[in-house]
Amino acid sequence: MKLPLIAITMGDPAGIGPETIASAWQRAEVHAFCRPLVVGHPEIMRRAAELIGGPLEVVEIHSPAEAAGSTTLMPCLRAVNAEAVEVPPGVIDARAGQAAYDALIAAARMALAGEIDGICTAPLHKGALWKAGHHYPGHTELLAELCGVDDFAMMLYLGPGSVVRGNAGLAIVHVTLHMSVAQALAALSSAGVLRKSRLVSRVMQELKGARPTVGVCALNPHAGEDGLFGDEESTIIEPAVERGLVEGLDLTGPLPADTLIARAVAGEFDAVVAMYHDQGHIAIKLLAMHQAVNVTLGLPIVRTSVAHGTAFDLAWQGRAESSGMVEALRVAARLAYSPLRDSRRAES
Amino acid sequence: MKLPLIAITMGDPAGIGPETIASAWQRAEVHAFCRPLVVGHPEIMRRAAELIGGPLEVVEIHSPAEAAGSTTLMPCLRAVNAEAVEVPPGVIDARAGQAAYDALIAAARMALAGEIDGICTAPLHKGALWKAGHHYPGHTELLAELCGVDDFAMMLYLGPGSVVRGNAGLAIVHVTLHMSVAQALAALSSAGVLRKSRLVSRVMQELKGARPTVGVCALNPHAGEDGLFGDEESTIIEPAVERGLVEGLDLTGPLPADTLIARAVAGEFDAVVAMYHDQGHIAIKLLAMHQAVNVTLGLPIVRTSVAHGTAFDLAWQGRAESSGMVEALRVAARLAYSPLRDSRRAES
Repeated sequence: MKLPLIAITMGDPAGIGPETIASAWQRAEVHAFCRPLVVGHPEIMRRAAELIGGPLEVVEIHSPAEAAGSTTLMPCLRAVNAEAVEVPPGVIDARAGQAAYDALIAAARMALAGEIDGICTAPLHKGALWKAGHHYPGHTELLAELCGVDDFAMMLYLGPGSVVRGNAGLAIVHVTLHMSVAQALAALSSAGVLRKSRLVSRVMQELKGARPTVGVCALNPHAGEDGLFGDEESTIIEPAVERGLVEGLDLTGPLPADTLIARAVAGEFDAVVAMYHDQGHIAIKLLAMHQAVNVTLGLPIVRTSVAHGTAFDLAWQGRAESSGMVEALRVAARLAYSPLRDSRRAES
Repeated sequence: MKLPLIAITMGDPAGIGPETIASAWQRAEVHAFCRPLVVGHPEIMRRAAELIGGPLEVVEIHSPAEAAGSTTLMPCLRAVNAEAVEVPPGVIDARAGQAAYDALIAAARMALAGEIDGICTAPLHKGALWKAGHHYPGHTELLAELCGVDDFAMMLYLGPGSVVRGNAGLAIVHVTLHMSVAQALAALSSAGVLRKSRLVSRVMQELKGARPTVGVCALNPHAGEDGLFGDEESTIIEPAVERGLVEGLDLTGPLPADTLIARAVAGEFDAVVAMYHDQGHIAIKLLAMHQAVNVTLGLPIVRTSVAHGTAFDLAWQGRAESSGMVEALRVAARLAYSPLRDSRRAES
């Protein structure tokens, strides 16, 4: 069985993306679980390889099929305008935003065409993306539009290990995401809770190889304290959980978010459905600032990402932590070769 | 210098309170930092001592001044009706709620009268408290009313150690607490943010012995993303931070809650001001389910508590974790003997 072909998009060239790719690339384990290639600009990747040190040669390729890398050889598809090479480190630059955009679009098209098995994205900077005229909150929404998908979700994932005790790791999916708390209250719906519960159950089925246990967060403290602290638990979340149970999902909730997440980390649940951004993000950032993986659910393609940002203050100093990139590649490879991959493609 | 006299209230006798007190009591370190006494019922405490095992004798005393305990001798003031002795383990019982209430009121009155230096409360069960006719969300609100205080706050505290890297530990105070998220949005005000910032700065000044650094959470994800995800950051939180800076508080924010709390745990801030219940509680429960201490700020008396509940499912099995009780006693003793104690009393 051939290893899955995973395209790593270069991200914003002013950020830590290129150096984390060059650093992760030199880890032998990466080449044991996937065949990676970079989509970006060979010149920028050469500069990143020099910064990191070690015998890493960057070679330009012209189609993903040519990718035959190793710890010392990095195949790179040029998908980015030459002006990106001029971008200085650590600044918001429209040319850098355009480069991140172009690499992402190129990789996503290859994935949609079946030329690659998945994509793993280095961080982009939203300010630079917007300066280049692309008004998206981030990768997730951009990819959903490109793939023509309405029913998608951002999942944060931590693999099993010393922190997360469950064998399948821990996934946190968000019912609402990039909006104010007031907007999240207005946007919260039974249909949304059910959709995200289905999406996270499906992806964790792939990663666990068995039906996953999913804990659904309450919105309010103490799960609403029997209606004293709000009624969204009984009017919105409970109906979604009941419907999910009828569909065969293994849902429990709504449970108070503070104790639910701690119980999930201890191994009691494979996944958590969070109602809003901070409910999930506070936990993930505390548990693992660097190792968390961002997975977009609901796309017809496999897409993972590091969960950190461009970290302009650290960029191009050779000090950035690359373990997140290794984990994001690992999860992309696992999802690309999951037994459910063909059915997922057939459905979409 | 005499050690501070700390009254431990017995809490709900159907829960894990009595056994955690009996277990913590036998730790020599407790008697090295305070002179503890129990306010509750000697018969129930005798039963808890038997459950835990070890040579612990419970003796009834009639005033706090008689307290002269040791690891093998527990002075106990009877403040609870005899019917509490009949309460079975692990059930919601009005007699148990009344007992928790009576012990708390007795201890608080002794503290207000200056007969003891502080109180440390074992958990009560809100259902039992309500069944007994006392309609308070919990200890905090009951004590605030008893002390005639409007400006109070619940603080969660973790001492310095392997998890929290700052030398003074980490405090999280909540601007809004026992209400729905919708109610919290309506209740959030600059005055509230400023009041809680002042309260947490003052208590952490006592625990640190120097001006504490305080990070103030944003309400919305990404701190509102420049107004795109809500404007409470600029309309409510920023004005409070600016005013606090003028008053000499060392405030930073509003910062995105997910990264702020992770930075605070890493030692960058001594305290965090959270806007609503789950923002603080998700972090604390993940960091330390058992060791967290609950401190009521703004009272004229010192009051700490374990941060966990009555855990009826575990009660009277001798398996409950008592490290939270030890930590709560340690913090009560430190606050009782802080150099600022006299000024705090003079102000109130």
